[in-house]
Amino acid sequence: MASSSSSSSGGSERKLARDSPLDNRARFNLSPVPSMDGDEDDNVKYENQRDHPNLDDIDAESGEEVDLTGGAQGSTTAVTMLDNHDDVRIGFGKKYNNDQVTNVTYVVRKHYENFETIDWLKDLMRNRIRQRNLRAQRRQSCKKRLIFWYDAWSGWICVLLVGVSAGIVAGFVDIGAKWMSHWRTGVCTSAFWLNREQCCWASRDVEYDEVHNEICKYWRSWSDIFGIDKSTVSAWFFGYFMFIFWSVIYAAFIVVLVVGSAPYASGSGIPEIKTILSGFIMYGYLGKWTFFIKSIGMIFATSAGLIVGKEGPFVHISCCCGNLFSKLFPKYGNNEARKREILSAAAATGVSVAFGSPIGGILFGLEEISYYFPYKTLWRTFFCCMIGALVVRTINPYGNGHEIQFPVEYNVPWATFEVIPFIGLGILGGLWGALFIKTNINWLKYKKTNHIGRYPRAEVIVLTLITAIFCYPNSYLRLTMPELIRRLVGQCHLDDHMDLCDYERDKPIATATAKLYAAVAGPGLHRAIWQLFWALIVQITLVIFTIGTKIPSGLIIPSISIGAIAGRLIGIITEQIAFKNQHLAILRHECGVSNEHCVTPGLYAVVGACAFLGGVSRMTVSLVVIMSEVTGGLSYIVPLMVTALTAKWVGDAFGEGIYEEYVKLSGYPYLKSRESFPFTLKAGEAIRANRSGENPPLACIMQDGMTISRIDTMVRQHPHSIYPVIISEDFPCLVGQIQRRDLLAVLKSRKMQLTYTQTKPLLNRKISVVSMSNLLNKSGQPSSLGMRRASLALQASKILQLHKLVDRAPIIVTDQTPMEVVVDMFRKLGCRQIFVTKNGRLQGILTRKDIIRLMHEANVSRKFEQ
Amino acid sequence: MASSSSSSSGGSERKLARDSPLDNRARFNLSPVPSMDGDEDDNVKYENQRDHPNLDDIDAESGEEVDLTGGAQGSTTAVTMLDNHDDVRIGFGKKYNNDQVTNVTYVVRKHYENFETIDWLKDLMRNRIRQRNLRAQRRQSCKKRLIFWYDAWSGWICVLLVGVSAGIVAGFVDIGAKWMSHWRTGVCTSAFWLNREQCCWASRDVEYDEVHNEICKYWRSWSDIFGIDKSTVSAWFFGYFMFIFWSVIYAAFIVVLVVGSAPYASGSGIPEIKTILSGFIMYGYLGKWTFFIKSIGMIFATSAGLIVGKEGPFVHISCCCGNLFSKLFPKYGNNEARKREILSAAAATGVSVAFGSPIGGILFGLEEISYYFPYKTLWRTFFCCMIGALVVRTINPYGNGHEIQFPVEYNVPWATFEVIPFIGLGILGGLWGALFIKTNINWLKYKKTNHIGRYPRAEVIVLTLITAIFCYPNSYLRLTMPELIRRLVGQCHLDDHMDLCDYERDKPIATATAKLYAAVAGPGLHRAIWQLFWALIVQITLVIFTIGTKIPSGLIIPSISIGAIAGRLIGIITEQIAFKNQHLAILRHECGVSNEHCVTPGLYAVVGACAFLGGVSRMTVSLVVIMSEVTGGLSYIVPLMVTALTAKWVGDAFGEGIYEEYVKLSGYPYLKSRESFPFTLKAGEAIRANRSGENPPLACIMQDGMTISRIDTMVRQHPHSIYPVIISEDFPCLVGQIQRRDLLAVLKSRKMQLTYTQTKPLLNRKISVVSMSNLLNKSGQPSSLGMRRASLALQASKILQLHKLVDRAPIIVTDQTPMEVVVDMFRKLGCRQIFVTKNGRLQGILTRKDIIRLMHEANVSRKFEQ
Repeated sequence: MASSSSSSSGGSERKLARDSPLDNRARFNLSPVPSMDGDEDDNVKYENQRDHPNLDDIDAESGEEVDLTGGAQGSTTAVTMLDNHDDVRIGFGKKYNNDQVTNVTYVVRKHYENFETIDWLKDLMRNRIRQRNLRAQRRQSCKKRLIFWYDAWSGWICVLLVGVSAGIVAGFVDIGAKWMSHWRTGVCTSAFWLNREQCCWASRDVEYDEVHNEICKYWRSWSDIFGIDKSTVSAWFFGYFMFIFWSVIYAAFIVVLVVGSAPYASGSGIPEIKTILSGFIMYGYLGKWTFFIKSIGMIFATSAGLIVGKEGPFVHISCCCGNLFSKLFPKYGNNEARKREILSAAAATGVSVAFGSPIGGILFGLEEISYYFPYKTLWRTFFCCMIGALVVRTINPYGNGHEIQFPVEYNVPWATFEVIPFIGLGILGGLWGALFIKTNINWLKYKKTNHIGRYPRAEVIVLTLITAIFCYPNSYLRLTMPELIRRLVGQCHLDDHMDLCDYERDKPIATATAKLYAAVAGPGLHRAIWQLFWALIVQITLVIFTIGTKIPSGLIIPSISIGAIAGRLIGIITEQIAFKNQHLAILRHECGVSNEHCVTPGLYAVVGACAFLGGVSRMTVSLVVIMSEVTGGLSYIVPLMVTALTAKWVGDAFGEGIYEEYVKLSGYPYLKSRESFPFTLKAGEAIRANRSGENPPLACIMQDGMTISRIDTMVRQHPHSIYPVIISEDFPCLVGQIQRRDLLAVLKSRKMQLTYTQTKPLLNRKISVVSMSNLLNKSGQPSSLGMRRASLALQASKILQLHKLVDRAPIIVTDQTPMEVVVDMFRKLGCRQIFVTKNGRLQGILTRKDIIRLMHEANVSRKFEQ
Repeated sequence: MASSSSSSSGGSERKLARDSPLDNRARFNLSPVPSMDGDEDDNVKYENQRDHPNLDDIDAESGEEVDLTGGAQGSTTAVTMLDNHDDVRIGFGKKYNNDQVTNVTYVVRKHYENFETIDWLKDLMRNRIRQRNLRAQRRQSCKKRLIFWYDAWSGWICVLLVGVSAGIVAGFVDIGAKWMSHWRTGVCTSAFWLNREQCCWASRDVEYDEVHNEICKYWRSWSDIFGIDKSTVSAWFFGYFMFIFWSVIYAAFIVVLVVGSAPYASGSGIPEIKTILSGFIMYGYLGKWTFFIKSIGMIFATSAGLIVGKEGPFVHISCCCGNLFSKLFPKYGNNEARKREILSAAAATGVSVAFGSPIGGILFGLEEISYYFPYKTLWRTFFCCMIGALVVRTINPYGNGHEIQFPVEYNVPWATFEVIPFIGLGILGGLWGALFIKTNINWLKYKKTNHIGRYPRAEVIVLTLITAIFCYPNSYLRLTMPELIRRLVGQCHLDDHMDLCDYERDKPIATATAKLYAAVAGPGLHRAIWQLFWALIVQITLVIFTIGTKIPSGLIIPSISIGAIAGRLIGIITEQIAFKNQHLAILRHECGVSNEHCVTPGLYAVVGACAFLGGVSRMTVSLVVIMSEVTGGLSYIVPLMVTALTAKWVGDAFGEGIYEEYVKLSGYPYLKSRESFPFTLKAGEAIRANRSGENPPLACIMQDGMTISRIDTMVRQHPHSIYPVIISEDFPCLVGQIQRRDLLAVLKSRKMQLTYTQTKPLLNRKISVVSMSNLLNKSGQPSSLGMRRASLALQASKILQLHKLVDRAPIIVTDQTPMEVVVDMFRKLGCRQIFVTKNGRLQGILTRKDIIRLMHEANVSRKFEQ
């Protein structure tokens, strides 16, 4: 139910979420939150006389919604209201039998509305009750024992499936993207389904061009196939044309597909995943259609040569897998809070399969994405990441037999003085990150108000055209980004003939085992430096406009690529400086002795990648681990740490990381787990601040049963999502809370019931029926016994008895509680609303959205102050 | 103050914590918690007319204790009670001037009692107020701005110092332990301060014996020095004797030191650190004396050849550094909650410096130790670990220029069929872990009741004697454990002449670059297998009795050692099986092709170490990362993961990990963050379950001011640590809470004041003075105006006005709240007590200790059920 609707209605939803001002309604609302208007029509299903003996018992005891339907009924769960059973209402102990009220079972939709935040506490509670029930029943029969064990192991089975599927998808996306990228320049005549690398494996006489691309007879360029002589200028231009042609075809295909069918598939998805994991509901975002389009989209977008990565989107794809598979298991599929455990594991696995770095994935999940991460999740995440990495390794998309994407085969110790250029790279990375975030966000904001935003398809196609035109002439840009990164982080060998390795060494040292030594740069290296510098500028410029378009676009690989270029450049410069100043005291100790190369430019590329990625994403630990795992070099943890810390420090001085900024830009109700509440405020003051100006009375329900018409009026006048239940108006002590949708369901069914059981005129009279308990207890106007008896039968059916729907465990704080503590409670307990009391009397309600709004306001006002 | 007392009184405290049944008083008490008896005498200091204008303002606003003394006054902070200022008491708006009450400032001790749990919420709140104050004052003067910045950066400076000091200590302990271990067998004649390895570096003709020990002319054994001919039997026995002699000397020295002066220095310290980080106070545990003795103790204990490691204790030592340095910074030194941030970072750094694995350290902190780990801590931990690793690298204790302890220089891909032996190792590791924990815990319990426990010194000395006697004849056991592990995880080279590398290869393959290939085992290898098997049995037996004695003793290195032996044995067996069955389908693909060795026994040692350590400690992610970092082999993450998961699964089937069991054994009030509350219970029921049988009335304070004598009586009769403040007895709505120690301070000072201002007879009459508000508001017996006026002056001084001490932000739940949520609140918010209300009326109090007791009971009863 949840996500299958995305194919048809996803488009409008997406627009709602990103562009239109309408969606503000769904997000920054003051407390109390108005619920959707469609509520009354959709929520209630009338189901007659269903028999759930077990359910009833539990319900009566706990006052909780219980899900024991095993997911068979999709998105509905049974809430039973057996009115003529024992009545245990507080303050009204007398039982009364009224035969008119029939035994009715109402079915209330259990799932949340779209763009709602979930109530972690209640969801987890529901799960616990469900589990206990299964445990209790397990001795009854063999089948129930089986169900119990299946349920207990379903988490592991689910993450196993997620790991396997994410690994398979990642492997095939990698293979597909590489093949399609190479297709732009030529085709393998022996077997067209091979990419250039694989094509040349079979060949015996492989040569390499100046950027280490394979040249072999099986692999023929398009100009060659079309019979144009290789050496002519027209051949080059024909190749140029074909390159642009294929790039635009790819990009056009995918942008049409994404904009037309699955708008949720655009972007990297990490900000949305963060928001979803924090408890937000976005139906369709993790649906199978999004999954499918995004998987294809990643192949096409990266193959089109756009400056986008496919590593960020893997997180989204993995989460789609997690969402789809969790539907097989009622424990997760029917419980949004538990489902997020699977999604957390899936998100980590996304990183794991994207980079072949299981530990990095876990840490990425912990540090960057996750919100609710119990210990068990860590363990399952571990398993899921491991499976994903194993599957990728088996598929072997990188063709090197490892799960490592950019292998660093050197193990030269780094010299202590190199900390200085590393810190320099860190500063550069931080600055670039800040610059990128600022310009990119501003560009996106500008597009929203501008006519460009109205032509997303044309935008992407033009962008691809520009990218292809700029990239083809530069042999480094013509490579796919992973290929470029691999070249940059690699070490030079003596038999390398790349431009990057052209040093003026005394050539005939010969033996393969002889070590390299520092040398002065040759002409090829000079050429390479200028080409790389040009590539750096082109990538930096293009990435700003590319990220945020309507295609699946990750930012991680572009950042790594830009960082690797910058790092390699600085590495070469440092190397040359060190070589020419070997006499300096700082260098002599570590560089001068054996004349082995003391500066490895490849290492600088790794460090640069770490710095630039750190500047954008502001990751620390996970970044270092990912970079270590991606390159396979554990010896460089300390340089990577130094750089990552510097980049983060510098970047943080200018603003937040890219994911936080995107969350802000999209206006998702994401309650950051890191930010402390920015000013001194007590909960009581916060309520007053919320009500600001208009002062509506708090819509409450009295515990002594209100009449239908009164509740009906209240529900219409105050469309909150939750109502507090108090003892009485004079004595507003909080008894519990009741949800609007439950109330609506009851109201509707009761009205229907009245229609059936009462005569029409009676219903149409719309008298304000006095509450029965008022008659009995308050005795302000003691009516005569006869009159009372007479009206009993009528009233019994008109008075709402809500005690079974009331949740008697609301979260309460006193009005003097500091807001920091309240925010902590929202974050750590995951509740949706907190009731503020003073000396036991209800003062008001604070919702999660109030908190976000308050924090937002505080940040704004603080900015003004400074 | 906190820890300096450990040298003198530490002994008795330690006994209290471990052995005597008396200490139960400090732990498993029912709510309400009786406070220490010494309270009344120690808590109050009377300080006359101190002037703190700023303090007063803040106090009046927040009703909080505020620490702005900057740590200058040690363990006291000022709480001001200015009674003749504006009186804003709720429900009693009338001001009255009474000149008799002088302006008095009371100083209440801020620190917690020993063996108390801290209140995270209040401590963090106090910190926020302090920070805001500094921020607000920073524009006043240049100095204040400086203080503000110093304060903002003090966290970073503190962890920098911790990292540096922990790194230095770790480096020197490593060097010292190695030197002293080698000293047992001989001495370097050229320079006695060198160990055997360093000694032979200078020598040109170095040979190696069958376990790869260096033999050179500078290094002379004791028998050699004493002029006994090498080849004779007596030389061997003299060497044996000297080995035993030195071992016993070392052990005797350290056990006398530890038992006599610093009992807290014994054991690994990780269980205690876990408990302390969860908010428990153990004064002296992290003191400088413990730090000093433990640092020395680690050198001696490992050098004595006992089966103990020094890696676990590094965590304790680092935490000591953290505690000592945090005293320099008021932000951390005066705030137990914030101090735990530094301690978390320090604990992680302990692992980082012990293994040279910064990432592993962070993860160990996250997974195993930490309790409160905000995002900022992660970042600082990262920095701290990095600094620690850098310092260790600079000191270079392993002599290999890396921070890697057991380098694995091979990079052979592992074959898929090897997963089967890896899983086998995991199962073995899990089983061993369970066996070890059971026997070790039972042995410790037995010792407590037995006379052995009364002679800890003799126990250690006898154990050392036995260990030395058993270890010397076995050349593998004669090595220190890190040396043994390094031999076991290493790969065989062609020029190795160790027994472990004795394969019957066609010898003259010659060139150093030629690759090894699988071969049948030679006689040396057979010999090695039997010796290793014997070593395995000896280590397994001895470690059970060694862990838990009164010496600093870590369990990590012994586990790794045992695991490495088991792993290497299984590796050799697998290798031989694979070699002899190359035709099998499962092996042909991966082993048969090039005849390169498809099974690397060294890798099995690594995996075995991981399995056995995992079986004992039940770590997962951190274990894998630590093992990867320790060996420097990132290619083997997936095998390590498989093994760690298997070991944990198998181990968990038999019980909990060693640290949890130790926490349980010691009876620390540790609220596990992983365990879910085991049965269905509502908060209201939990209170009833707590009161079980005896039903004392809840000791409450009325908000309308009670008389001194009444409060005095109540405090004496109900020695709780906290009292709820309610509106009145008939209407028990919760207003706030007040701490016993504040109350006592006020009572005492008020009594003194009365003594000064009133005439003696008046005080001695001990009349029950009626509360003023009772006179004014309740008007049950309307006294005459004159009489009231007359008694006003008297009463004003006799009625306690506590509104400034009342904390109006207690944590409240309703009686219908499920206990799972309550436990979650204790865990995640870190509060000490939660008030349970029903419809606004106070029902009871639940403390952290109640929760621990309830969970404990539930576990016991569940065991009975099964």
